[in-house]
Amino acid sequence: MDTKKPFASKIGEFDLIAKYFAPLAAKCDGALSLLDDGAVLDIPTDESVVVTADCLLEGVHFLSDTSPKYIATRALGANLSDLAAMGAIPRWIFLSLQLPTNQNEQWVSQFATALGQMMEEYGVSLAGGDTVSTTGGAGITITAIGSIKKGSALKRSGAKPGDEIWVSGTLGDADLGLGLLKKIHSANSKDNESVNYLINRHYCPEPRIKLGKMLSQNAIASACIDISDGLLADLGHICTASNVCATINLGDIPLSNAAKKLFAGNMDTAQKSALSGGDDYELLFCSSPKNSEKIANLETKLPLCKIGIIGEKSSSDAQGVKLIGLDGNEMTIQNRGWEHLK
Amino acid sequence: MDTKKPFASKIGEFDLIAKYFAPLAAKCDGALSLLDDGAVLDIPTDESVVVTADCLLEGVHFLSDTSPKYIATRALGANLSDLAAMGAIPRWIFLSLQLPTNQNEQWVSQFATALGQMMEEYGVSLAGGDTVSTTGGAGITITAIGSIKKGSALKRSGAKPGDEIWVSGTLGDADLGLGLLKKIHSANSKDNESVNYLINRHYCPEPRIKLGKMLSQNAIASACIDISDGLLADLGHICTASNVCATINLGDIPLSNAAKKLFAGNMDTAQKSALSGGDDYELLFCSSPKNSEKIANLETKLPLCKIGIIGEKSSSDAQGVKLIGLDGNEMTIQNRGWEHLK
Repeated sequence: MDTKKPFASKIGEFDLIAKYFAPLAAKCDGALSLLDDGAVLDIPTDESVVVTADCLLEGVHFLSDTSPKYIATRALGANLSDLAAMGAIPRWIFLSLQLPTNQNEQWVSQFATALGQMMEEYGVSLAGGDTVSTTGGAGITITAIGSIKKGSALKRSGAKPGDEIWVSGTLGDADLGLGLLKKIHSANSKDNESVNYLINRHYCPEPRIKLGKMLSQNAIASACIDISDGLLADLGHICTASNVCATINLGDIPLSNAAKKLFAGNMDTAQKSALSGGDDYELLFCSSPKNSEKIANLETKLPLCKIGIIGEKSSSDAQGVKLIGLDGNEMTIQNRGWEHLK
Repeated sequence: MDTKKPFASKIGEFDLIAKYFAPLAAKCDGALSLLDDGAVLDIPTDESVVVTADCLLEGVHFLSDTSPKYIATRALGANLSDLAAMGAIPRWIFLSLQLPTNQNEQWVSQFATALGQMMEEYGVSLAGGDTVSTTGGAGITITAIGSIKKGSALKRSGAKPGDEIWVSGTLGDADLGLGLLKKIHSANSKDNESVNYLINRHYCPEPRIKLGKMLSQNAIASACIDISDGLLADLGHICTASNVCATINLGDIPLSNAAKKLFAGNMDTAQKSALSGGDDYELLFCSSPKNSEKIANLETKLPLCKIGIIGEKSSSDAQGVKLIGLDGNEMTIQNRGWEHLK
């Protein structure tokens, strides 16, 4: 097939859906083979439906030359991560795909293949959506639907003074990886393994579904959020929703070995990414100190690090997050994270 | 406020959501004031969740100078109509809004106001979504979630030979209205009332929620679809999903008084719109002849017209829809409707 020619003139919407997307819905009876007006979905009677929607646009959320494979993994990762943050089990996604008129079929094929592989990994089915052509850039809106036992969804609003603040995994990797891709950072060494590790953390987020489920089922987290806007911004969201403040220690924030190695001579950069870079999709949660043993016994291979403590809301700091530096003194915070309309 | 200046520089994403969209979620506890990662929604235990997603783009689905009010009504109308076609009761929507960087706040205000009014009318709450800025045109992706008693969702796949084919309301109006807006059609008279009627049918679709519910609850429809792609295309979808063919009579297809008056000297145009024009969002359904009395007794103010009959699948017509002209002879069909990628 000549994939250089405009794709839209060679295949129509219905054929496109049948060829690339209906197979991703094959295991879901309620998707009705994507041939109907909507999907009809059943969840267990003792569960609530958990829904989240996210839109990724070319030029805004991903570079124009990003491989369709990574656009798929980032779009799905961001959505499933929101379900993970509530402790929900993902079940279905709805995909609205805006396809540039000059896009080729190979792009769609690669996008659908990567999406399908990641959906399989996380046990979700495609259940519906929409495909439209556009003279603008590509756009991917995914609505992800999961479920959770009634009354047990994790929220941002339950943090209490005295709760300890935890994060999973390591922070800043995705932002450092993006910096390397954009050539804002130059790696200090020829350590390709570390470079690839960080870039992969940007391209292929791993939503922490299992951890979210364990935090919910074991009633560990009083509040939870996924770190998509950056640690300071997302902790700020918890403080706002819970009406508390938070103090975290710079020295306790976990950095990956790759970040430590590549930015050994420039730890400021790595720390800034860990504090303010988005898209790590690790979980940030609060938990009573009495849960320490429960947390230590969680069957997860992910490192879980205690980085600070929740306090009473203070009127002196509107955002509610204080950062203690390596010298034990409070640091000035200049960049709290990412807002989509700025 | 100076609304000529770029909007994005004056208000951030979180403020925008708080000011214009959180009020639309105020009645929905599970939306968590739009402050959380997702929404947590409960439906009655004897009901299934029905979900549909649609994307409307500037320049593709609406003209660039379309009032934000009508962009809202068309986007929501198209989505709720898909729920109507399955007999579901709409409950929540998720909105992903792509906002051009040079858009002003007045646009958002008008969009949100119109969306809120129509949501109120149909009893739905905003439960989540996403707002992103774009250098391209505006885009609106709505995922609508409804519910229906388990096992009673209307589908496209149940039509049987011998079933009668029915449509609600009148057809072609929205397409004629769009033609008037685009000045493809010139009205034959100064009948402003009729012109406005047709244009309003384009701008403000009325999803047939009550009718869909009655067709489902009274077990009337063997198959149902909303007419969004055009009568011939949508009847074709039913034929494909049900593995049947269909014969309809041009003379039985209901036209509005406005269409009849404005296109009196050019009935071909009105008929072509009724057959192939999209976006009327009337319901097309199939029903056994034994249900005639039930249909006649439905408490709806909408006209319901019998326009044809379902037959055994014939190998001679791949699309499965035959059109009988006013002279009783079969007509050649050249334009079956609208595919989004052509």
